[in-house]
Amino acid sequence: MHAAVIHGPHDVRYEERPDPTILAPGDALIRVVAACVCGSDLWPYRGVRETKQPHPIGHELVGVVEEVGADVTVAQPGDFVIAPFSLSDGTCQACRAGMPSACDHVSFFGAPDPDKLPIDGAQGERVRMPLADGSLVVVPGPVDDALVPHLLTLSDVMSTGHHAAVSAGVGPGKTVVVVGDGAVGLSGVLAASRLGAERIIAMSRHESRAALAREFGATDVVAERGDDGIAAVRDVLGGDLADCALECVGTKESMEQALGVVRGGGHVGYVGVPAGGSELPIGKLFSRNITVGGGMAPARQYIPELLPDVLSGKIQPGKVFDLELPLSEIAEAYAAMDERRAIKVLVRP
Amino acid sequence: MHAAVIHGPHDVRYEERPDPTILAPGDALIRVVAACVCGSDLWPYRGVRETKQPHPIGHELVGVVEEVGADVTVAQPGDFVIAPFSLSDGTCQACRAGMPSACDHVSFFGAPDPDKLPIDGAQGERVRMPLADGSLVVVPGPVDDALVPHLLTLSDVMSTGHHAAVSAGVGPGKTVVVVGDGAVGLSGVLAASRLGAERIIAMSRHESRAALAREFGATDVVAERGDDGIAAVRDVLGGDLADCALECVGTKESMEQALGVVRGGGHVGYVGVPAGGSELPIGKLFSRNITVGGGMAPARQYIPELLPDVLSGKIQPGKVFDLELPLSEIAEAYAAMDERRAIKVLVRP
Repeated sequence: MHAAVIHGPHDVRYEERPDPTILAPGDALIRVVAACVCGSDLWPYRGVRETKQPHPIGHELVGVVEEVGADVTVAQPGDFVIAPFSLSDGTCQACRAGMPSACDHVSFFGAPDPDKLPIDGAQGERVRMPLADGSLVVVPGPVDDALVPHLLTLSDVMSTGHHAAVSAGVGPGKTVVVVGDGAVGLSGVLAASRLGAERIIAMSRHESRAALAREFGATDVVAERGDDGIAAVRDVLGGDLADCALECVGTKESMEQALGVVRGGGHVGYVGVPAGGSELPIGKLFSRNITVGGGMAPARQYIPELLPDVLSGKIQPGKVFDLELPLSEIAEAYAAMDERRAIKVLVRP
Repeated sequence: MHAAVIHGPHDVRYEERPDPTILAPGDALIRVVAACVCGSDLWPYRGVRETKQPHPIGHELVGVVEEVGADVTVAQPGDFVIAPFSLSDGTCQACRAGMPSACDHVSFFGAPDPDKLPIDGAQGERVRMPLADGSLVVVPGPVDDALVPHLLTLSDVMSTGHHAAVSAGVGPGKTVVVVGDGAVGLSGVLAASRLGAERIIAMSRHESRAALAREFGATDVVAERGDDGIAAVRDVLGGDLADCALECVGTKESMEQALGVVRGGGHVGYVGVPAGGSELPIGKLFSRNITVGGGMAPARQYIPELLPDVLSGKIQPGKVFDLELPLSEIAEAYAAMDERRAIKVLVRP
C-alpha cells in the first residue's frame, strides 16, 4: 500500500509501505476513505519537534472496515467508521469516566501500541487499529460522500474545538472569546455556537478565516492582540471581559491572551498542544480565580454526541477544509498548510 | 482601642491604636466579637513574607455594627455581622458573576482601601469596613454565644474549604482526596462531606487532626506522601485514583500531590495561597486532562449558602478552633499556631 512518511523538516513522502494485517484479536483493519493534515503535524514538519527516524504520520481518518480480529464486536467488515485520533481501551478508569484521551493504554497512529506492535499512520491507504472496541465509532450507512469531510472532523478537529468549549464551561448566556483562527479555533467557534453561547468573539487577523468564523457563529471578530486585544474585547462587551476563553494555539502568548480576556472567576479551556513555554502563572490564576481545563480531546466520548448534528446537517464542520488533494500529493498538502495557503487539507487515497 | 500589630518575624504585639471612625458613606464601624489567626498570617510571622513596616494584622472577624455611613443599607447599628476576609463592591462584573474575591475594588483588612483610606486589622477591638453593602452579611439575631466560633469560620476558613471543594467539582458519588490537614484542609473535608462526596480521603500524619477529619466526614486517612501517598489512595479506592483533589497547602509538593492523586479527567481545587515554587506543569495537565481551579475564596458569595447549616447546627466548622485566648495574648496565639500546638486559635477582645 501507499502512505505518508515523514523523514525530517519539510520532507513528507508518499511511499510504499507493507500492507497492515490483523496482529491481535482486538484489531480492526481499516481502508482509509479520507484523512487530513493537523496543525500538530506541522511541528515535526517545521522541525520544531525532531524526527529521529522516518515514520508514518497522520492521526485523523474515516474509513471502511475490511477485517476484524476475533474479539472485536463494535464493527464488522463493510462498516463506515470514524477513528478518534487517540485510541483507548474503553475500560480503564479514565475511559469509564468519559476521558478516553487519558486512557491507561492510550495509543496513537504512527507509533507502537502498548504491546509494541506497530500502528500505521492515518495518512495512508490502510491502517491496523488496535483497541478497536474501545475506539471506533460506526456511522450508520449508507454514508453520502458529501458528508465525508464533516465526519472526518469528528476524528479530531471538531471534537477538539468542542473540548475547548466544554472545558471552558460554554453554555447558554455565556460570553466567549476564541483565541486562534486555525481549524481548531474555528471549530471552537462552531462548538460554542452549538452550545448556545450568547456572544462569541473570534480573534482573527485573516479575512477568509474571520469570514468562516462568522459563518460558524462568531458574533464579533477582533483583530487586535495582547493588551489591545483585551481592550477590544472590553469594547465589544460594554466594558466587561468574557466568561470563557478557548485557547486553541498552544503558545505562551496565546495562553496569556486567553487568561487576559476572561473575567475574575472565568474559565479557560485549552486544547492547543503546549508548544513549550506556555505557562500557567499560578499567582495570577489564584488572585483572579480563573479555572483552567482541557488537554487532549476525548474524541471517542464526544463523537456520539456530535454525530447526529453532522448527519442532520445542523453543523457543517467540514467547511474548515479549504483544499482537497489526492494522498499522492501529501507533500503539497503539508506545504499548503505550512505556508498558510490552506486552513486545513483533506487527502483521499 | 487595642489591636494586634505585626512588627516583624515572631513579633506580633498587642498595642494601642487610634479608634477607627467612619471615613466614607459606604463604611460600617464594627465592634469585633471574635477574630482568629490564619495560616497565611504565619507567613509574615515566620518571615517568609517581609514586614516592611509595622501594620495591623488579621482578616477574619465577626462582630456587632456600631455605626454606619449614610449610604449603607445592608446593616444597621446593633446587627451581628460576618465580615468576609476580602471586601468587595458587589457591583463589578466579578461580583455579579459570584466571584467577589476577584472584585475590581477588592480590599483587605490591614491595608489601604481603593481610596487610600486605612482599614484596620481584624485582630483588634474595632474596625472601619469600607464597601459594607457589598461585603457584610447580617446574622439574624439574637446570636447564641456558642455559635460564635462556627460563624467566625464563615469569614474565611470554612468558606475557603468550601471553595476548594466547589472548585474541585465535589458532589454526590465523587471520590475526593484532601491534601493538607490544617484548618483549611479540615474545612475542605467538612465541605466535601456536606456536598455529598461518596469517599473522602484525608492525607494526614497527625492523630488529633486525623481524628477531627474523621469527625468532619473523612472516610479514610492516608499518612503516606508522594508516590507512596498515591499508592495508598489507590489501595483505598480499589486501584483507582480520585475524581477530585483539594489542594489546601500552597506548596510545590502539595500541588504535585494533588495532581498525582486524581484520575485522568479529574479536577483539582486549590486554595492554598501559592507559597512560590508551586507550579502547574502544563504538559502533564494536558496529557491527563486535569482541570485546575480555585484561588481566593469568594466568602461573601458562599456565606448565605453555608449560614443556614451553621445556624441549624448541621455543620460545626468551629471545631477547628482548639485554643481560645483573649486578644491581649495575641502573641501567644501566633506562637501556638507557629509551633503547631494549636490547629487554629480564636481570640476575643
